[in-house]
Amino acid sequence: MNPHLDEIAIDSQVVLKGSFLLVKRDTVRMPDGHSATREYVVHPGAVVVVPMLDDGRLVMERQYRYPVERVMTEYPAGKLDAGESPLACGQRELLEETGYTAREWAYAGAMHLAVAYSTEIIHVYFARGLTLGTRQLDHGEFLDVITATPDEVLAWCRDGTVTDAKSLTCTLWLQNVISGAWSLDWQPGEQAAQPG
Amino acid sequence: MNPHLDEIAIDSQVVLKGSFLLVKRDTVRMPDGHSATREYVVHPGAVVVVPMLDDGRLVMERQYRYPVERVMTEYPAGKLDAGESPLACGQRELLEETGYTAREWAYAGAMHLAVAYSTEIIHVYFARGLTLGTRQLDHGEFLDVITATPDEVLAWCRDGTVTDAKSLTCTLWLQNVISGAWSLDWQPGEQAAQPG
Repeated sequence: MNPHLDEIAIDSQVVLKGSFLLVKRDTVRMPDGHSATREYVVHPGAVVVVPMLDDGRLVMERQYRYPVERVMTEYPAGKLDAGESPLACGQRELLEETGYTAREWAYAGAMHLAVAYSTEIIHVYFARGLTLGTRQLDHGEFLDVITATPDEVLAWCRDGTVTDAKSLTCTLWLQNVISGAWSLDWQPGEQAAQPG
Repeated sequence: MNPHLDEIAIDSQVVLKGSFLLVKRDTVRMPDGHSATREYVVHPGAVVVVPMLDDGRLVMERQYRYPVERVMTEYPAGKLDAGESPLACGQRELLEETGYTAREWAYAGAMHLAVAYSTEIIHVYFARGLTLGTRQLDHGEFLDVITATPDEVLAWCRDGTVTDAKSLTCTLWLQNVISGAWSLDWQPGEQAAQPG
């Protein structure tokens, strides 16, 4: 509790129930007792996976992202289905989008994507021991699967080839995992840690 | 152009003009010729500043973020005003929120925050040669200013104290700037590079 910072909900209403976005507008009581309005996207949460091939290369995707009007270079990611665990979501998205299954998984951490206007949390998993099968893209999903060395990915983060915030955050993890500064608890998939 | 990935706008309408959020719903033509719907937040863009004190400590903020229901630890940031340059925005937000002015500025790069449902781009600036004056918080803005060493910030990124995606991305820059792997072009404020 931080009474000089916290905001307390007084009222909440749905202001947009779109085909993709759910937006709420809440009235809140601020620390000074005044009230204010907060509008935000209600998001089910998501998972992003850093897939490491046996030769050290990373599996990434190139996908057109309409809101930013460009093809983005990103790690595989997707939204949680209802009732789905983050690990199961990561395994599903990796297979669907890239065709890879992984022998070992490690939970890294979480990020909040757009704290001013979205509830979205993204859980970061690492995957290794990869085996390539057949990808199963959703209807209407178009993306290229690419591979790159960690040095290439880091250069892309610096030169503006990678500008996706979740992928930049994953690369902070990647760099520190590779250097040994941050360790991961690798486990066979079904035993990998889940977010607390 | 990536004709096997790109989506072309066919129609666009505003579906929410809220007190804070503007949401559009577009119809697009996909690479296979079918059409699909895209809903997204239209955002003016933003700037985040990594302010480095002369002793190497970073200036950060603790602020309650209602959508994620917690106090977040973040670098100073804010939205672009109409017609405002990213550098002027960074200078303004740093002063308003923390009270600091900076002698030198360096443009690092850009990130896209929520590529699936927002147009938001955030420009990353570094600031040094800091002088503390008086902060000028907006009415109804409540936040604590803190300082931390780079090692502390990195530990916070690992242990889940920092989960804000823009701040995690800034820390990727910070780590590589401090190591010397990524160089910055420091300039007096009015001469600092602007995004291209």
